Amino acid sequence: MTKLNPMWSGRFSMPSSDLLQKINESISFDVRLAKHDILGSKAHCKMLAKTGIITKEECKKIIDGLNKIDKKITSGSFEFKIELEDIHMNIESALSDLIGETAGKLHIARSRNDQVATAFKLWIRDALKKLEGHLKNLQSALITQAKQHVETIMPGFTHLQAAQAVTFAHHMMAYVEMFKRDRSRIKDASSRLNECPLGAAALAGTSFPVDRNMIAKELGFDCPTANSLDSVSDRDFALEYLSLVAISSVHLSRLSEEIVIWSSQQFSFIKLSDAFTTGSSIMPQKRNPDAAELIRAKTGRIIGDLNSLLIALKGLPLAYSKDMQEDKEPVFDAHDTIVISLCVMTEMIGSMYVNKEKMYQATTIGFLTATDLADWLVKKLGFSFRKSHSISGKIVKIAEVKKCELQDLTLADMQSVEPKITADIYDILTIDSSVNSKTSFGGTAFKNVKGAIKLAEDDV
Amino acid sequence: MTKLNPMWSGRFSMPSSDLLQKINESISFDVRLAKHDILGSKAHCKMLAKTGIITKEECKKIIDGLNKIDKKITSGSFEFKIELEDIHMNIESALSDLIGETAGKLHIARSRNDQVATAFKLWIRDALKKLEGHLKNLQSALITQAKQHVETIMPGFTHLQAAQAVTFAHHMMAYVEMFKRDRSRIKDASSRLNECPLGAAALAGTSFPVDRNMIAKELGFDCPTANSLDSVSDRDFALEYLSLVAISSVHLSRLSEEIVIWSSQQFSFIKLSDAFTTGSSIMPQKRNPDAAELIRAKTGRIIGDLNSLLIALKGLPLAYSKDMQEDKEPVFDAHDTIVISLCVMTEMIGSMYVNKEKMYQATTIGFLTATDLADWLVKKLGFSFRKSHSISGKIVKIAEVKKCELQDLTLADMQSVEPKITADIYDILTIDSSVNSKTSFGGTAFKNVKGAIKLAEDDV
Amino acid sequence: MTKLNPMWSGRFSMPSSDLLQKINESISFDVRLAKHDILGSKAHCKMLAKTGIITKEECKKIIDGLNKIDKKITSGSFEFKIELEDIHMNIESALSDLIGETAGKLHIARSRNDQVATAFKLWIRDALKKLEGHLKNLQSALITQAKQHVETIMPGFTHLQAAQAVTFAHHMMAYVEMFKRDRSRIKDASSRLNECPLGAAALAGTSFPVDRNMIAKELGFDCPTANSLDSVSDRDFALEYLSLVAISSVHLSRLSEEIVIWSSQQFSFIKLSDAFTTGSSIMPQKRNPDAAELIRAKTGRIIGDLNSLLIALKGLPLAYSKDMQEDKEPVFDAHDTIVISLCVMTEMIGSMYVNKEKMYQATTIGFLTATDLADWLVKKLGFSFRKSHSISGKIVKIAEVKKCELQDLTLADMQSVEPKITADIYDILTIDSSVNSKTSFGGTAFKNVKGAIKLAEDDV
Amino acid sequence: MTKLNPMWSGRFSMPSSDLLQKINESISFDVRLAKHDILGSKAHCKMLAKTGIITKEECKKIIDGLNKIDKKITSGSFEFKIELEDIHMNIESALSDLIGETAGKLHIARSRNDQVATAFKLWIRDALKKLEGHLKNLQSALITQAKQHVETIMPGFTHLQAAQAVTFAHHMMAYVEMFKRDRSRIKDASSRLNECPLGAAALAGTSFPVDRNMIAKELGFDCPTANSLDSVSDRDFALEYLSLVAISSVHLSRLSEEIVIWSSQQFSFIKLSDAFTTGSSIMPQKRNPDAAELIRAKTGRIIGDLNSLLIALKGLPLAYSKDMQEDKEPVFDAHDTIVISLCVMTEMIGSMYVNKEKMYQATTIGFLTATDLADWLVKKLGFSFRKSHSISGKIVKIAEVKKCELQDLTLADMQSVEPKITADIYDILTIDSSVNSKTSFGGTAFKNVKGAIKLAEDDV
Repeated sequence: MTKLNPMWSGRFSMPSSDLLQKINESISFDVRLAKHDILGSKAHCKMLAKTGIITKEECKKIIDGLNKIDKKITSGSFEFKIELEDIHMNIESALSDLIGETAGKLHIARSRNDQVATAFKLWIRDALKKLEGHLKNLQSALITQAKQHVETIMPGFTHLQAAQAVTFAHHMMAYVEMFKRDRSRIKDASSRLNECPLGAAALAGTSFPVDRNMIAKELGFDCPTANSLDSVSDRDFALEYLSLVAISSVHLSRLSEEIVIWSSQQFSFIKLSDAFTTGSSIMPQKRNPDAAELIRAKTGRIIGDLNSLLIALKGLPLAYSKDMQEDKEPVFDAHDTIVISLCVMTEMIGSMYVNKEKMYQATTIGFLTATDLADWLVKKLGFSFRKSHSISGKIVKIAEVKKCELQDLTLADMQSVEPKITADIYDILTIDSSVNSKTSFGGTAFKNVKGAIKLAEDDV
Repeated sequence: MTKLNPMWSGRFSMPSSDLLQKINESISFDVRLAKHDILGSKAHCKMLAKTGIITKEECKKIIDGLNKIDKKITSGSFEFKIELEDIHMNIESALSDLIGETAGKLHIARSRNDQVATAFKLWIRDALKKLEGHLKNLQSALITQAKQHVETIMPGFTHLQAAQAVTFAHHMMAYVEMFKRDRSRIKDASSRLNECPLGAAALAGTSFPVDRNMIAKELGFDCPTANSLDSVSDRDFALEYLSLVAISSVHLSRLSEEIVIWSSQQFSFIKLSDAFTTGSSIMPQKRNPDAAELIRAKTGRIIGDLNSLLIALKGLPLAYSKDMQEDKEPVFDAHDTIVISLCVMTEMIGSMYVNKEKMYQATTIGFLTATDLADWLVKKLGFSFRKSHSISGKIVKIAEVKKCELQDLTLADMQSVEPKITADIYDILTIDSSVNSKTSFGGTAFKNVKGAIKLAEDDV
Repeated sequence: MTKLNPMWSGRFSMPSSDLLQKINESISFDVRLAKHDILGSKAHCKMLAKTGIITKEECKKIIDGLNKIDKKITSGSFEFKIELEDIHMNIESALSDLIGETAGKLHIARSRNDQVATAFKLWIRDALKKLEGHLKNLQSALITQAKQHVETIMPGFTHLQAAQAVTFAHHMMAYVEMFKRDRSRIKDASSRLNECPLGAAALAGTSFPVDRNMIAKELGFDCPTANSLDSVSDRDFALEYLSLVAISSVHLSRLSEEIVIWSSQQFSFIKLSDAFTTGSSIMPQKRNPDAAELIRAKTGRIIGDLNSLLIALKGLPLAYSKDMQEDKEPVFDAHDTIVISLCVMTEMIGSMYVNKEKMYQATTIGFLTATDLADWLVKKLGFSFRKSHSISGKIVKIAEVKKCELQDLTLADMQSVEPKITADIYDILTIDSSVNSKTSFGGTAFKNVKGAIKLAEDDV
Repeated sequence: MTKLNPMWSGRFSMPSSDLLQKINESISFDVRLAKHDILGSKAHCKMLAKTGIITKEECKKIIDGLNKIDKKITSGSFEFKIELEDIHMNIESALSDLIGETAGKLHIARSRNDQVATAFKLWIRDALKKLEGHLKNLQSALITQAKQHVETIMPGFTHLQAAQAVTFAHHMMAYVEMFKRDRSRIKDASSRLNECPLGAAALAGTSFPVDRNMIAKELGFDCPTANSLDSVSDRDFALEYLSLVAISSVHLSRLSEEIVIWSSQQFSFIKLSDAFTTGSSIMPQKRNPDAAELIRAKTGRIIGDLNSLLIALKGLPLAYSKDMQEDKEPVFDAHDTIVISLCVMTEMIGSMYVNKEKMYQATTIGFLTATDLADWLVKKLGFSFRKSHSISGKIVKIAEVKKCELQDLTLADMQSVEPKITADIYDILTIDSSVNSKTSFGGTAFKNVKGAIKLAEDDV
């Protein structure tokens, strides 16, 4: 039979059902908040002493006790009990065992509601910092590849159809931009969540003369939260975390898709390191890009996590409802998933072999300079773009019929469509000239991308 | 440094990255497929012997080995190794340690692709059976409450506004209907998924003279799957499982919401057993319906799980891609979540106290017989319903102004709106007569609900 | 100022806010239920007459009126009014204008709650039928391609890596299987939803002596629903519809992805008809598979629709809540989306050109017969599969170094790994023999696939 | 037969399928980008002239033409053609009709890819501004209610169980905080998205000597985007918009749930204005909070919209794929949905009647001062909170048995649990003293909330 939770069972005449305990407990996952809970408790305790609500001796006793518990947890010798429901009660109970009734003073002027919100915010604040570090690492790996391939030319695709030639460096740098925006979202979320709920108590505030500014400062928050009801009801910080992780994982899924496609025999643009390739239990020749596929798939998982919490919070009346206990697992799962994905992607990018020849060769089919041809008609013959586009399209059609590329057409071929075309058109029909002509800001010309790399290096 | 997977590493010159291993392994969760993998292997092995692909002795050796492994797993003495990636390789490797090279014959004419699909289907088939049992248990608990409250009258609500009087039994039976549909979906899904993929091998079928019908029969499948590519690419059975669990969890969330609302001091329609109530760490008087709130919230989690897999499978080319390894965790999580939710709900419903007085009292405010009044006007005075509705509305307005209920109005009050109204109208203005007049099939009259209960009892 | 809704405004002293009307109206989308609402009303009316609740004359008058309205709607001359909120009130009001007060008798013994549920069920029942027809059409198009390509050999992929040779027919038939399961889900859903809610009235049933079996029969339902509260609260049929559409759209997304990849210059396995290709506003040479991409993307939209309704229904207390009005738009949107997707896919598959040469050529790289080699070692030398797999892997490595395919190795090359290998190994190293050796049930051998096609033809 | 799109059909020998046109067109929804497309075109045109790519005369002609088209669109006389696919081609074609071949010069150095991205960003930038305005209006309505109810006392709930007394003003202000965070997210998103993609052309940049900084400045962007591939592939701004709208709609759903619950006969805390209440077609007495229910349900719709786009973008290779055309409808739908929801909520809050008496009366049941009692024991008797909590729990139990409230117990009752309790405990057992004792920062004391209101007023 389940023991009654000593923290709230004073008035109950029957023990909890085992099933209630099983569905209700959170210690199996909120154990990850241990450090943050202790941090919060120590700050609260110091404030209680400073404001005279408890004595300095009591404070010292509590802090010493918490430090001992912290060490036990760190060393792995702390015994977590499921009947104590969550990390907060486990620590409080251990404190009580350790220092006796003084432990009970720690819960003056706070409740689990503000205590949980605080610990969870502290955890997410840390998670955001870590996430930013991992994003930077991936950016560095991408930049390193970019630096080696400023002059590696590949087809740029739209609709997976070869469109115009670009450099592999430029392609890598597109992802650097995406992850830069992810970092920017982290920065905003970090500063928005940085308000301390401790002192909101259960929902109404407290009649004890607490100093919420002091606790906030002690814990590195910018200020205390402004409304006690909102303080214990709010999980925006978790939703915002999940949202930004979801966007970031969409970026990863796009890069993963490209890795899978580029690794196919048909593309052969890259070869993943053996260290990031798996084999088959039946087909001895296989080199499978499992890691890229897993990262791609895990986007679904992270979007699922985001949904979980949005849905759990939908339609909840104020202030705290137990539904909100479902906030942690999706956040933890999304965090672990994005972190392993970023780490794997970083090493996979860092160790992949880029097949320059295959990439370049791929630019020689698909009429990648058709736009350059149209641009030439605009520049040299003063045609409108629409007219030039149409002429260029007709010339492509001739090349298709002749099964050759644009630069292989004769001048007569081209003049049959537009008599004013002159021989200097061949200057712009090569892939290299095409790439290097794209000198507009953000364009793919070697010089431009070198500049972009330099700027990005300063940022990671 | 990570050891190479002996199953596929023949051709690789570098060991796997530790990170690859970490993202790639599935043993941490697919260990739940152990029994089903062994079942599948034994069926495969018997077929290999029957068709002469291996000898009877080899078959016996393999089966004996698998049985030993099965026992070790059951007893908890089997050591799972992360470097062996998944449950299938763990078992195969253990078999090899146990019986030597003969173990390698088990993988003739199959691949991990069809092996995984088979084990996972077997698992889901079992899960569906269990789920049906849990749904039946909950139906029983609801029926038991219904039987005790055939004559317990409560307000039926629309828009959370009191609408017409119904019985509590009728309300319970509405949920019995929902869970009946859930069971019906389980039945359909179970029979649809019951085709055996084993023998599809990697994706193309096999050149060995296998007997796929024999394996299918051995494992209780209706037949083998019809297309080898589809056999290893298909996860419809997992999607369908998640879909039906999601719908079922929506039903649970609705019942949970009602429990939360009914438990409020303002409603006080029910009182949950102490065994399903929690207290507060700060407010000594609290009796919180945590379990109902958690079940309600977990709907979000299950919808999240469904999304995870739908999204992971979106846009995957045939046949197998590693993305599909993300199929198991959402299914396992949804399964565990719905099972604990059903178990808790069953006991919570079973042990809750129904406050008949409060329920009845609540029917005396809100003009619940206004529709009966309108119906009387139709029946007795031959008015159209629209006219009757309008008259009834005006009489309600008088009662609102007088701050009384309909039956407390004088005949003169009512005749001031419609002179033809006679005194026998008072017969139909009582709550009891209102409830018992609803004798249409499926209606809330005591007699009807008794009949519905009888039918339902035969079904659970 | 907004006019008061004449149907329920009897007791209100203020008109509705324009904003309320705007958020509340559903006529802008539930106009699609017009036919089904009229059908339901006619069945209800006949029953009212049959049971003597209204007279035969009244019945005739109402039915005639409804028929006139039906014609006006069909001809486009019916004027829908937003202030009448929804399709049901629009029709009822028109009936009243047409035949006077008798119209008001149609609403005897029913409410909008059961009326809406009935009309919506009828609509979805029709939608399921249409959907099945569209799925059959797509299956036919796939089968037609399959018949032309029973002997067209292509690489089968796992992880987008060439794995083993299969036929294009076999690949097409994998999708035929998927859409067959979709049809099977439609069948189950159709029969499960086929219970008639009419007569449940607002939520409690009715005191009028209605014959719910008669209405059910009249409308082609199997029976009336069993519980009046559930009848008006239930939207399982919509959820189940959205679930099966979501699964079907995942299938479409997979086929779309393959079309996009196969259309790339690098693969060139297929060429879409000009009729299903778009160009670029800037790049004159582009042939973009827009339609395939759109179908792929629309999977997201349909999953979004499924989520919308699951989330809207989460946590709703019984019986009807206005939240449930959000049931129709996701269903309509998902329906329109899947229908256009299926139609486009059917024609796109039907008109695409399959490049046999490119497909065959692709089977000559990637060591697609490495498994056949391993199988040979098992069969001829009696090795275990694991040992054979390892030998085969080493031989592949030699071929990789020599930059040749397996059949191009000398016997000496192979014997350097395993001396017992004999010259007849070359018989199984060709692609054609590999494909035709896969004769297991469901395998890719020409003969098998021909059989599968024959069976499938009988089913569409 | 479908006409060929004149913009890209130069090379095609067959017209588009009608079905392709139907699935491909976006003019039915991207017509909403008309103004923004014209703005973008005018800026591009000015830049082309400034940099000498076109002449001043050409520029004038184009701008004049665009202005005429703008007027026609505004006046409703512009004829949109589905065969021209999208808003961009419709405008370009109209320009061509209007000014002849010069129109074709507008497309120099840009493509539809960067053109669409620019117009859509401009649209979202505007949408964010509007959204902020609507949020402010709702905050104002909440603040206005708060100001009138600084001294209106109600039960604060956790788990929908009465917990501690708070003020209605404080409760309203909790929502003001939520919407304040929403506005903060808008601010961040607005500044992050404010980079101009125009000039990225199809994907590679352009060889024309464009001045991207000039265009950016002209359109009010902070700068041009940094990478041309990313410029046309990026839809982060749409995802971020949908994310913040989803979070905001969760806030609205919580307020809606409270309105529905508070409007129930059992709570009767508020009465919605007739202008925001609907009636029933069958039950004449009903007053349904439809609008609140619809807003609650629409959260599902918005989360569905967010999912749609996350899923559509998952796994897309760079640069542009047609899948990205599915970006607009979810954004438009979410926008329209959140805007109508906010407008309705603003007026509904503004016009609702708050039943002070019912609220206050509800604080007299449920032992709302039990925490105050525990706090008194801590303060006056120096007990630990845990001990005090336990004593308070026991006293509550006595009151439960005696069916009275805490202040109705005799001193002897209380002393039977803890003899040291003295008569001045009655000072803190009243609801009013309880509320006003919560003076901690963010607490519910009248004074505090007044201060919070003042601060908030300065912010809206």
